[in-house]
Amino acid sequence: MIILGVDPGTATTGYGLINKEGQKHTLIKYGCVLTPAKTPLCDRLDAIFDELSEIIDEYKPEHIAVEELFFAANSKTAIAVGQARGVILLAGKKKGLAVHEYTPLEVKMALTGYGRADKNQIQQMVKTLLGLKEIPKPDDAADALAIAICHANTFRPEA
Amino acid sequence: MIILGVDPGTATTGYGLINKEGQKHTLIKYGCVLTPAKTPLCDRLDAIFDELSEIIDEYKPEHIAVEELFFAANSKTAIAVGQARGVILLAGKKKGLAVHEYTPLEVKMALTGYGRADKNQIQQMVKTLLGLKEIPKPDDAADALAIAICHANTFRPEA
Repeated sequence: MIILGVDPGTATTGYGLINKEGQKHTLIKYGCVLTPAKTPLCDRLDAIFDELSEIIDEYKPEHIAVEELFFAANSKTAIAVGQARGVILLAGKKKGLAVHEYTPLEVKMALTGYGRADKNQIQQMVKTLLGLKEIPKPDDAADALAIAICHANTFRPEA
Repeated sequence: MIILGVDPGTATTGYGLINKEGQKHTLIKYGCVLTPAKTPLCDRLDAIFDELSEIIDEYKPEHIAVEELFFAANSKTAIAVGQARGVILLAGKKKGLAVHEYTPLEVKMALTGYGRADKNQIQQMVKTLLGLKEIPKPDDAADALAIAICHANTFRPEA
């Protein structure tokens, strides 16, 4: 089963594709949708929607897992992340993917069994669980892979 | 010039279409994208995107004006509104509309000349400026018309 994990942000949206076969996960691809500073918001959202739609067409993931946030440093950040999440969820929906959402706590628990794990611990687990030589860069891509692994380890198909 | 005003929300997104001819504004249509309670978020965002896209196809507005928020009661509300804004802005962008954003303060100033105007004062101005017999209902639709009027009164085409 191919899973697309996404870490939403208007300036940088990270994505990671993994293949779950039984208990083993393998890396397919990871990266970021980057938009230059001063790019109008609409163009950023358009780029996020289009690039994710293209990735879905090319790699045909069955599920998309997106970070779910309830808290943010401030309203401005929350609205910005919400806007990116909106077009990411829409891209998944339009392509007929099953959409799943996980909180940062759920991601931490799924990867380390410890809800207060820090960013470095999560990234080390991403590296280990996918058998990589290095931690994926940038952080947004590593976070997206963590969300994909969280879904792979959490999701149980309904009987 | 036909202007589509939109007041974003995941449960209810209000919209209002007006025609600006010189200093006069006439109502074309208003309403809400309503999604039943318990509708999954993806389906709500999909409905908002599709309904607004259909309205744009049918009425061919040249501009879309969307409320811009910097503050919200809490992060959860801010993220929810952000998600709706994301797909609204994307719908406008995909249809090639010029997208404009106005803060609640700008809307209040444009309609009443008073930044602390309350909701009822704004709605009375919407009724008066569009020559309506009643205040449009629900509030989300009246707010969307207020945003459209704000744009009509504020926008100056570049020479």
